[in-house]
Amino acid sequence: MSFESNTKLDIDGVAEFLNLPSSKVKKLASKKRILQNWGKYQNLFRFDKKVSKIESGTVLYQNNGYFELIRGFPKIKRAMAVEPAVKSHFKNSGTVSVEEKMNGYNVRVASINGDVTAFTRSGIVCPYTTERAKYLIGQEFFEKHPEFVLYGEMVGPDNPYVPKNIYNIESLDFFIFDIRYKNTGEPLPVYERRKLMNDYNLNQVQLFGEYKIEEAPKNITKIIKEIGKQEREGVVIKDPQMRINAIKYTSSESNCADLREGFKFYNDFGRDYFYSRVIREGFQSVELGESEEEFQERCLQLGRSILEPMSRTMRKVAQGEEVHDDVQIRVKEPETIYEFEKHLKRMGIDAKFGAPQQVGDEYLVSIRKLNQSTNDKTKAIWNGSLWKS
Amino acid sequence: MSFESNTKLDIDGVAEFLNLPSSKVKKLASKKRILQNWGKYQNLFRFDKKVSKIESGTVLYQNNGYFELIRGFPKIKRAMAVEPAVKSHFKNSGTVSVEEKMNGYNVRVASINGDVTAFTRSGIVCPYTTERAKYLIGQEFFEKHPEFVLYGEMVGPDNPYVPKNIYNIESLDFFIFDIRYKNTGEPLPVYERRKLMNDYNLNQVQLFGEYKIEEAPKNITKIIKEIGKQEREGVVIKDPQMRINAIKYTSSESNCADLREGFKFYNDFGRDYFYSRVIREGFQSVELGESEEEFQERCLQLGRSILEPMSRTMRKVAQGEEVHDDVQIRVKEPETIYEFEKHLKRMGIDAKFGAPQQVGDEYLVSIRKLNQSTNDKTKAIWNGSLWKS
Repeated sequence: MSFESNTKLDIDGVAEFLNLPSSKVKKLASKKRILQNWGKYQNLFRFDKKVSKIESGTVLYQNNGYFELIRGFPKIKRAMAVEPAVKSHFKNSGTVSVEEKMNGYNVRVASINGDVTAFTRSGIVCPYTTERAKYLIGQEFFEKHPEFVLYGEMVGPDNPYVPKNIYNIESLDFFIFDIRYKNTGEPLPVYERRKLMNDYNLNQVQLFGEYKIEEAPKNITKIIKEIGKQEREGVVIKDPQMRINAIKYTSSESNCADLREGFKFYNDFGRDYFYSRVIREGFQSVELGESEEEFQERCLQLGRSILEPMSRTMRKVAQGEEVHDDVQIRVKEPETIYEFEKHLKRMGIDAKFGAPQQVGDEYLVSIRKLNQSTNDKTKAIWNGSLWKS
Repeated sequence: MSFESNTKLDIDGVAEFLNLPSSKVKKLASKKRILQNWGKYQNLFRFDKKVSKIESGTVLYQNNGYFELIRGFPKIKRAMAVEPAVKSHFKNSGTVSVEEKMNGYNVRVASINGDVTAFTRSGIVCPYTTERAKYLIGQEFFEKHPEFVLYGEMVGPDNPYVPKNIYNIESLDFFIFDIRYKNTGEPLPVYERRKLMNDYNLNQVQLFGEYKIEEAPKNITKIIKEIGKQEREGVVIKDPQMRINAIKYTSSESNCADLREGFKFYNDFGRDYFYSRVIREGFQSVELGESEEEFQERCLQLGRSILEPMSRTMRKVAQGEEVHDDVQIRVKEPETIYEFEKHLKRMGIDAKFGAPQQVGDEYLVSIRKLNQSTNDKTKAIWNGSLWKS
């Protein structure tokens, strides 16, 4: 075990490393802006909120007495209307690369003192994802390149967070969309990154093409329409040199799929979740210059995506059933099941694990996540509870 | 003028009257939980938030050296599902009275030292509403009954807040739905109130009927379906003796009309506004046990109510136009126009008043309310601005 047992944050050391006053670091720690991971990962600290130039989710740890950072995911802003967004945001870039935005969960994988470790968005080590990452990425890449962090999407049905069957993936795969240096967070240019991943035979997201700014919007619209038919999520638009922040744009079909998922558990999801997805439909419809018929179809799709899952939930609860999210994981080590169960508990997720089933050299475990707020609220209404206003 | 010029709150006097410690009243005043009205109404104080048993919007003033209260509107909670709500909420009431909930704005009218004065929900004197109330209610009722406060809805097209043409009202009428004593807020029983209003020839909301608890839900559903066809809002369900709080239930058509209005100004309305209205559609659909065809129709209506006004706004702004709310008022005194303009400014509403047009012995004034947030946001998106996530 290369982890030290000292779990205290070295305030002065961190202050010097980050070029911040010690008092500031002390305050961040006491205000729980810098948090620890659990168990054997307790020496991996994480930034809960953005602190000066350090993104939220950034991980801080020591390597042979030297501090290192794994920078958080850079915020990817969204184009609501493709053409003005691309033309304005990339006006100083000659062309843009358009890569697929896949629908799974964001993961960073890095070698921490020789140990391949996977972090979810907030900088928390996920034991399941770490086991999968070790197996999917192997040792070779990080032996040669310990300086890099792989940013990617965990996608597929054996997915405890965002299970999707739309990508024809058997279990769970890791699709890399970004490689950045430790500490600085400096990204590799698109083609350099893609070549490197090819050389190591690692999975990466699809590159649809590189387009001149003038040509990009109509090509992006075409791609979105095409991949939307399979409910694929959308695209990320990048400066090939990665000097400008990337932006994203998504399909109506994926948007409506999100709404269906959200309204199934209507009282568990935030109101912003619904609002922002509905607004997207408006801008997309206007920018596409839809016919009256296409517009009516979009209205019906939107209405259905909201009402169908919600009324199904309400009907189920009226009949005395509960609604829940059934997901599954597939592991090599039985130990991972136990670790992942503890992990979900710490995250405040109410989940019931089924008995592991051996499949080849792996174990399949079904997990039932309870969305208690929606169940409770719906039950209360059918029992005569009133809405506050 | 019967108003005293002293604008200071008499802390000790108020404390004694409300049976609260002086320190508490002082704190409420310093925290701006007790606020003053403006100009000639500056001696009418109002409670901005609920304080122990005093509802928010309650008005406090002195009458010949004695304090008096005009209690705020009691919260009327909403049935999401009629049958369980009515059976559970009114289980100790033999019957319920069902009256119309009209779509306008809530107003309390009272005689303050002999002066008929109209308050909006927050306890603010509205100069336009006050002029209308004086004219619509006259002096007679309050001369006989200075102890009462009339609670009602200002409804019709000459309405600066919620203009509606659905009630066949020429200008603006006041429909009384509640009468309460000053100070205690004690309500009159339904039939006593209705008789009193009849005796004085004052307008009141429609009484649909009184029903046994067992029979009420199916009757309410029938009423809602019927009035919904005219886009009328809904009903308030009351214990005829008014010992139990009233509850409300609304039609899908009115709900969708609200959504259309809200999504026209999608960035000016709160997210709760959209969310709660969408959830209502779900429960109503399930409770009605709709056919597949009716359900598809509801989905389409919901989708349209969201997307049509929103995309119309987006298209307008793309063409360089602005969206705004055009309303109008009708006054007898030109002075009221000036007072109302100041009133809207104080409320933070950005409005442009047109030139008054004389119609008979009254003046019609058009008012254009700007919903700057929606205009700005939409313009920014068409100019390439990005959404935060």
